[in-house]
Amino acid sequence: MEHPENSADYKGLTVNSGVEQPSIVNPYLTRNRFARRRLTASDYVEGILAGNVTILGQAVTLVESTNPAHQAIAQEVIERCLPYSGKSVRIGISGVPGAGKSTSIDEFGIHVLRERGGRLAVLAIDPSSEKTKGSILGDKTRMEKLSTHPDSFIRPSPSAGSLGGVARKTRETIILCEAAGFDKIFVETVGVGQSETACHSMVDFFLLIQLAGTGDELQGIKRGIMEMADGIVINKCDGDNVEACHLAARQFANALHLFPMPESGWLPRVLCYSGFYGTGIKEVWDMIFEYVDFARSNGYFDHRRSQQARYWMYESIHEQLRSRFYNTPAVAEALPLAEQNVLAGRLTPFAAAKRLLSLQ
Amino acid sequence: MEHPENSADYKGLTVNSGVEQPSIVNPYLTRNRFARRRLTASDYVEGILAGNVTILGQAVTLVESTNPAHQAIAQEVIERCLPYSGKSVRIGISGVPGAGKSTSIDEFGIHVLRERGGRLAVLAIDPSSEKTKGSILGDKTRMEKLSTHPDSFIRPSPSAGSLGGVARKTRETIILCEAAGFDKIFVETVGVGQSETACHSMVDFFLLIQLAGTGDELQGIKRGIMEMADGIVINKCDGDNVEACHLAARQFANALHLFPMPESGWLPRVLCYSGFYGTGIKEVWDMIFEYVDFARSNGYFDHRRSQQARYWMYESIHEQLRSRFYNTPAVAEALPLAEQNVLAGRLTPFAAAKRLLSLQ
Repeated sequence: MEHPENSADYKGLTVNSGVEQPSIVNPYLTRNRFARRRLTASDYVEGILAGNVTILGQAVTLVESTNPAHQAIAQEVIERCLPYSGKSVRIGISGVPGAGKSTSIDEFGIHVLRERGGRLAVLAIDPSSEKTKGSILGDKTRMEKLSTHPDSFIRPSPSAGSLGGVARKTRETIILCEAAGFDKIFVETVGVGQSETACHSMVDFFLLIQLAGTGDELQGIKRGIMEMADGIVINKCDGDNVEACHLAARQFANALHLFPMPESGWLPRVLCYSGFYGTGIKEVWDMIFEYVDFARSNGYFDHRRSQQARYWMYESIHEQLRSRFYNTPAVAEALPLAEQNVLAGRLTPFAAAKRLLSLQ
Repeated sequence: MEHPENSADYKGLTVNSGVEQPSIVNPYLTRNRFARRRLTASDYVEGILAGNVTILGQAVTLVESTNPAHQAIAQEVIERCLPYSGKSVRIGISGVPGAGKSTSIDEFGIHVLRERGGRLAVLAIDPSSEKTKGSILGDKTRMEKLSTHPDSFIRPSPSAGSLGGVARKTRETIILCEAAGFDKIFVETVGVGQSETACHSMVDFFLLIQLAGTGDELQGIKRGIMEMADGIVINKCDGDNVEACHLAARQFANALHLFPMPESGWLPRVLCYSGFYGTGIKEVWDMIFEYVDFARSNGYFDHRRSQQARYWMYESIHEQLRSRFYNTPAVAEALPLAEQNVLAGRLTPFAAAKRLLSLQ
């Protein structure tokens, strides 16, 4: 079960990269001969392009780092990997806690690798992961089969604080994974808040896992999630639950018909499956790959990716404008009093904003 | 039917304000003896506090102006009116085009003024008004009864471009109207896009006008509008349509029960009425004033207003950060090429954002 890429050692990489070896007399370098810091951007790029998952993992750690020096290398690596990225199918997988996402992703991943070959990276967007120490994908053992599969790469959600930060790092990680030859990317997300919007904005197909009889239908409609879904799958369609699942499927299908036809021209479908028993999995993935063929043939696939890239450019600008502003010391100092005055009605919100903006 | 406040002339005001009269020998000033520019911030404040709707209207025009000199006076006027504001009930009224908002507001306004006295200001938030030259409230004659009522003040939506700008001006206008003694404020908004969120964030009660049998129910749920509503009223409950309206009311009521209890502790109600025939109006407004008493007694009324003020402070900051950035000449010049490169996949969204941010 050993992953051949995992055994590629640092020495092998440096030979390939042609980077000059440091002098052995430096005791610090000797002690840290295999340490990550010694890799240059070129080392990372070559390691990634060679499909080395150890180097890939280290590069992702750099992407997730808040250290400015790490970020500088990470950005160079990403830019240089960009021409080799994009050749994958990116699938977003969402569902409320309890929908059985981990078990499903385990089964989905094994099915896809067996039926279609290639390599699969499983990433996550979970802004809550900092607080809860990795609530999704944090424990790889929840994906028993995939975690030991030679062609898989599982990476928990970065714990970077804001959703924007977490989503950005996941999006950059997709580029690195694709450059490393991963042609299938799963992006798992929790079914709460804005993380689904972030996930939807970086994938080619957005799959929504639902359960029968939990009021999920309305929850999904309410938060606009159903409008984002390219497919809805109802899990736990087994035993006594089969009839309820089929009923829920009809309800979802009816609700979907009331929405306007999506821009893609693809009417989302609703299917039932059982992640636990591994039934109905093939139908789900035949549907997803049928969508991919459909969207590629009508040009929507590339169109969606372009629009997503533009969206992320503006999101990134706005996030950094805010971050710069609130990190300005004078602003940070004056903000609490300004907010108190606004809450108490002593200052208009607009006057308070103007005064704070004058401090930047 | 003449409004006594409308007859208050400029001369009367300047006597009250104690501002020195300009010399009559200046022919420009002579020709423009009654021109708006001659009012100082103090003139505006005194006119507004005296309940003069002509001065109020001129002050609102200043608030809506993009001229920096006008804005400076406007902000001073708003700040000085702030201590006299807040003593009103603010009602947001939303509904898709065709729901009969104008006729309803006309009936609602006349009913409220007759039953409860006081003064009513009708404002609007319609970000599309610039393009369509005032699609809502643009034509005062659509509110036949209110437009000639001595205790009403009707003001179309400012046509300031962005939703943030339009909403800000409406919010500032509320302050001026309240300082002028208007104790009831209606804020009309169109049932599309984000304008309802903006409206909801400045009112005490958000009323949603719906129609029976148009698929509106799901539309409302989908866009999260129903979650914002403190009350839903179904219009055109007359003639052959009565049964369909009652059915729709039951459907809405059932849907509302599936949402979590709102923070206010008030379960939104669903009522039917006919704006055209003027039936069911009393029940709608008894419900609204029951809510107001309820929210005042449990403290939610003031809590909501404080939270709204804070929300607007942050919205205003973010809007102005973006506006500053995109109006930086170097950014405006570089943006189109950066966007092209991102769309074509030649540059990551994050690298493009970083380069653009370095130009500010």
